[in-house]
Amino acid sequence: MSMVMPGTAKPRRRYQTAGRRLGAQATRDSILQAARFLFAERGFAGTTIEAIAAQAEVAPQTVYAAFGSKAAIAKEFRFLLEREADIPHRFQEMLAEPDPARQLELVAGIGRYICEQHGDVYEFFAASREPELAAVRKEMLDAQRWGMRMLVDRLMEKDVLRPELDPEDAASILWAVSSIEMYRKLVTYSGWTPDHFERWVAASLKGLVLAA
Amino acid sequence: MSMVMPGTAKPRRRYQTAGRRLGAQATRDSILQAARFLFAERGFAGTTIEAIAAQAEVAPQTVYAAFGSKAAIAKEFRFLLEREADIPHRFQEMLAEPDPARQLELVAGIGRYICEQHGDVYEFFAASREPELAAVRKEMLDAQRWGMRMLVDRLMEKDVLRPELDPEDAASILWAVSSIEMYRKLVTYSGWTPDHFERWVAASLKGLVLAA
Repeated sequence: MSMVMPGTAKPRRRYQTAGRRLGAQATRDSILQAARFLFAERGFAGTTIEAIAAQAEVAPQTVYAAFGSKAAIAKEFRFLLEREADIPHRFQEMLAEPDPARQLELVAGIGRYICEQHGDVYEFFAASREPELAAVRKEMLDAQRWGMRMLVDRLMEKDVLRPELDPEDAASILWAVSSIEMYRKLVTYSGWTPDHFERWVAASLKGLVLAA
Repeated sequence: MSMVMPGTAKPRRRYQTAGRRLGAQATRDSILQAARFLFAERGFAGTTIEAIAAQAEVAPQTVYAAFGSKAAIAKEFRFLLEREADIPHRFQEMLAEPDPARQLELVAGIGRYICEQHGDVYEFFAASREPELAAVRKEMLDAQRWGMRMLVDRLMEKDVLRPELDPEDAASILWAVSSIEMYRKLVTYSGWTPDHFERWVAASLKGLVLAA
């Protein structure tokens, strides 16, 4: 997947707040995990607030008070995923890496990690017909694509990009080849190990965007 | 996408049958087109047999008599797509082409054509949660992947495959890189022209699977 999602400062800070707010965040997190399980199992449309409350072992009113709506819960997944995977940190590390080939290996590693850990969430976002979820999904895709464009800027500074390659096209290629859709085709369907996938993505990205 | 779907002899033959059976096929085709439109618009679950009948301007009984069920209609899409795009013919032409690089260009062309013409059908298959549709989708994917494996056999006969590449992996790569998911990411999302996509897929496949 190889993505970064901007704007993580706020959710992160919540973890560092003691007492009541920590309890509130813990409740929110268990609601989010319950919703994640049910959305993957029954789809977004097939899941009620009541079912989420039952799964999280809280009252439906608690779910309404914490989020307001089912769509608002789904929107929160963006931040939940970041906190779990520590994507911003891994992404900054990748950007700061001086060796271009190693940068692409780190991209492949981030992508593999996200596919393994969060494939379920991307799946139900992609499968949903809800306009509200489509809007959140668009934001997630935009953030991923934007992260790859940042990497392309670094590669251009080092003058290692294939000379005939447009920078926007390079970003799209990095983004598409390390995507969850490729993971589904190669790991889930074709039976590759995640290790094999990660190595193939790294090698392919080098061949596709770096000057020989 | 780069696929072939075996077993087309039967639906093809229907077109060559005169009189009553031709009329029956015309009715079936207009039901299929109506269903295709509605499935894309409302999803499989959101479409009733009655709505399909109204869209096709036939009685619901006619739909039941022709197909029996909504799932049976969806299954027929496999053959409808083949008839429209003449995929088996294009695929055989690609297999028979002696030049390996040109073979991969033809793969890219077939993939682009299918993405442009039939993306809507693959989309609602992928988005559906119906087990019956999932089974048909699996068959379609298997047929695509199997077609790519046939191509890999031709490339191996010519001894032009990258020496370190496992033939099964090569087939998976050909299949994944020319897929509708890549088309969505590069054309629909990133704004590439279909021409640009086709050229990029052809060049990338050459780099990824052919020996230097």
